[in-house]
Parts: sequence; structure tokens; C-alpha cells
Amino acid sequence: MHKITHISMETDVLAENRHLAEHNLERLRGSSVRSVDVMGTTGAGKTSLIIALSRMLMARGLRVAAVAGDVTGQDDYDRFQAAGVRAYNLNTGKECHLDANLLDRTLDGIDLLAVDFLFVENVGNLVCPADFPLGTDKRMVVISVTEGDDMVRKHPMIFQGADIAVMNKMDLASYMGIDVERVKADYRRLSGGKELLPVSVRTGDGLEALADRLLG
Amino acid sequence: MHKITHISMETDVLAENRHLAEHNLERLRGSSVRSVDVMGTTGAGKTSLIIALSRMLMARGLRVAAVAGDVTGQDDYDRFQAAGVRAYNLNTGKECHLDANLLDRTLDGIDLLAVDFLFVENVGNLVCPADFPLGTDKRMVVISVTEGDDMVRKHPMIFQGADIAVMNKMDLASYMGIDVERVKADYRRLSGGKELLPVSVRTGDGLEALADRLLG
Repeated sequence: MHKITHISMETDVLAENRHLAEHNLERLRGSSVRSVDVMGTTGAGKTSLIIALSRMLMARGLRVAAVAGDVTGQDDYDRFQAAGVRAYNLNTGKECHLDANLLDRTLDGIDLLAVDFLFVENVGNLVCPADFPLGTDKRMVVISVTEGDDMVRKHPMIFQGADIAVMNKMDLASYMGIDVERVKADYRRLSGGKELLPVSVRTGDGLEALADRLLG
Repeated sequence: MHKITHISMETDVLAENRHLAEHNLERLRGSSVRSVDVMGTTGAGKTSLIIALSRMLMARGLRVAAVAGDVTGQDDYDRFQAAGVRAYNLNTGKECHLDANLLDRTLDGIDLLAVDFLFVENVGNLVCPADFPLGTDKRMVVISVTEGDDMVRKHPMIFQGADIAVMNKMDLASYMGIDVERVKADYRRLSGGKELLPVSVRTGDGLEALADRLLG
């Protein structure tokens, strides 16, 4: 988080965000939309994962949409659309995270009664999104085996605030020589006993279990 | 960057940082220390890259030190020390980037006359560090092939502000099926004709060329 001279102002911003997040949650639930905030490192595979999960949920009969959050551009939006996932682009301009106000304004452009499940892809960043809940049912954090085995210890706040933690690109685990058990143990300790979910979007391993968790 | 209600305050923070950065640069150059701010995604391999480059510079007779910047913990510091690189730990607490003030305070604890080259590893983040030059001779941004081929287009500011851009983990390029030429073309266009440097810390490819660039 950037240095802000007056602590009271930071508190105000976070409190106002929480208030708006509650408003978003009411709004989504009022339209029977289930939702997840997908946080994670840049390049962890958030977009590919959302596409794979969207296809699974659509195969289960759900109407899915995705909000593509990024600082600039519409690469992820284009990828969602090309993959047949209804998408909405959300650029933050310079902000390193989404916030409840940005999601609120994006929801204005979505016919929520035509959506059963909404993915909100946050800006790739393991620090700033932690402080800004959006008002989704769940928060999920995605890392990948290529990032090393110290991610949980280095970014405890975002893992503590997440309902689901996912380690992607498991097909590369042996090549990377990463100690996945160490990451799992770190997360178990930090989360009070929760299990990190290993997945591979490339092979499909773990994705059905993750889809169940999203709906659970 | 976080939402800050008063634009004037943001301007003040950035202007003060630039002033302190100039002070740091004078201080480093005054002690004949050459320096680089190593920015990049979480998990791009910044720490491994700095270790590999440090060994090369040490083999060339330079006295090297590294500042390990992270939100919390001392994993990178421990890795530097274990690899024989003199290291200094710098935790930001919650900040998602280093700033010139934090570096200034860290320099207070370093015998600069015993250092020829200083690596400063920034917090893993492709957004926030862009706005906060530290006062190093050069700024370098590190991404890896596992993050996809859209990184430059998604994060133009940090690439525009960097003197050197590096793509790591090239040994995984064919497995990942990434279009490296596309990333190179994006960077060339954005930087006014500069070349992205492909490297692999694992195989050593490209590292000597990168060391030359750091000293050039």
C-alpha cells in the first residue's frame, strides 16, 4: 500500500470500500448471482483458469460471466470473449487492485438476471488486493509452481483473507524442482488448517474439485 | 496505485520521492557504488538472477551487495547470504513497492566504501514500483516466460521507466508455447527500439550479456 500521510484517510478509504462491498454482495445475491474475486500473481494463469472453470460451470448448466480487471488494455477481455465466456472489461487506469466502487460501476453494465456465476479477475498483484474486498461470495488466490515455494510466507495477508488458495501449473512442479509440500504446510499453518488446492489448467488436474469448492 | 482523495497529496509524495532519489544517487555515486533497482513480477526469478549476476560480477573482481526488499520476512535475504552475497534485509510492512526513503535508511547501515555494485531487489509487483525511482544508476524489470506473452502490453509504465528489460526462464519457452517474438516486438515498440534480453538463470544463457549491460 502506498504511503499515505494521514492514517485517518487510509481508514476512511478502507471503511468506505467495505461498505460498498457489502452493497455489492447484497446486489449480487439479490439477483441470485454467485461470485468469486480471483486474485493472484501476474502470470499465475488466472485468465486461463477462469476460462477452464467457466466451461465446466457452463457444462453444468450455469450462465457464466467474467469481469476482466487490468490496469490497462483488454487482452484478458479478448481472451474471455474468444473462449466463449461473456466478458466485461474493467481498467483501473493506474490502480494496482480493483475496489468495490469499480466493481459497483461495472455491475451497472451487466444484466445480472442473466448470470448465475460471476468471476471477477483482479489485477495481478499479491499485495494490494488483500485490503479491498469487492463484495463477492468468495475470494480466491492463485499462485503457480513457477514462482517458487516461498509465496505463502512472503504474502500472508492475501492468503489469510482468501477463502480458497490454488497452486496452478502443477504439470511443471517436477521440472521446477519446487517443494509443493512446503507451500501446502505454510498455507495450512497460516489458514488454520485449510488445504491449498493443486491444479493444472494444462492437464485439467484438480479443476473439477476446484469447481465444486467454488459452488460449495 | 491506491485511490488517494487529494491529487495534490499524491503529487507531493511522488515529488518528495524523486528528491530523495536524487539524494540517494549522489550518495551512491559519491562512494563509487554502481547500482540497479531490480523490479519485476513475483516469482519471475529476481533473487536467483541477482545471485547469478552477483557471482559473475564477483568473478570480475567487484565487491557486490544486495538489498532484499519484501513486504515481510527474510527469505530472499537468507537466500543471498546462503549464496555468499552480502545482503541487507528491507521489509516494507505493507507497502507494495520500495521507495527512496526506505532505501536511504537502508543505505545508512551499509559500508558503501566496501561495495562496488549494489543490487536492490524491489517488491514483486509490475504496477506500483514504476512510480517510485529509488536513485539507482539503472532500473531493470524482470519477467518470465511462464507469465504469458502479454506482460509488456499490460504493464507499459514499468517497461517505459526501465533501462533494461529481461525475460527469464527461457529454458521453459518451448514448453510454455509462448510467443517470445511478440513480447520482444511489444517492448521494442514501447521503448523506442530497445531490445528485451532473454535469459535463463537455470542454463546461464544470456547472463554474461546482461552483466555487461549492467556495467555499461
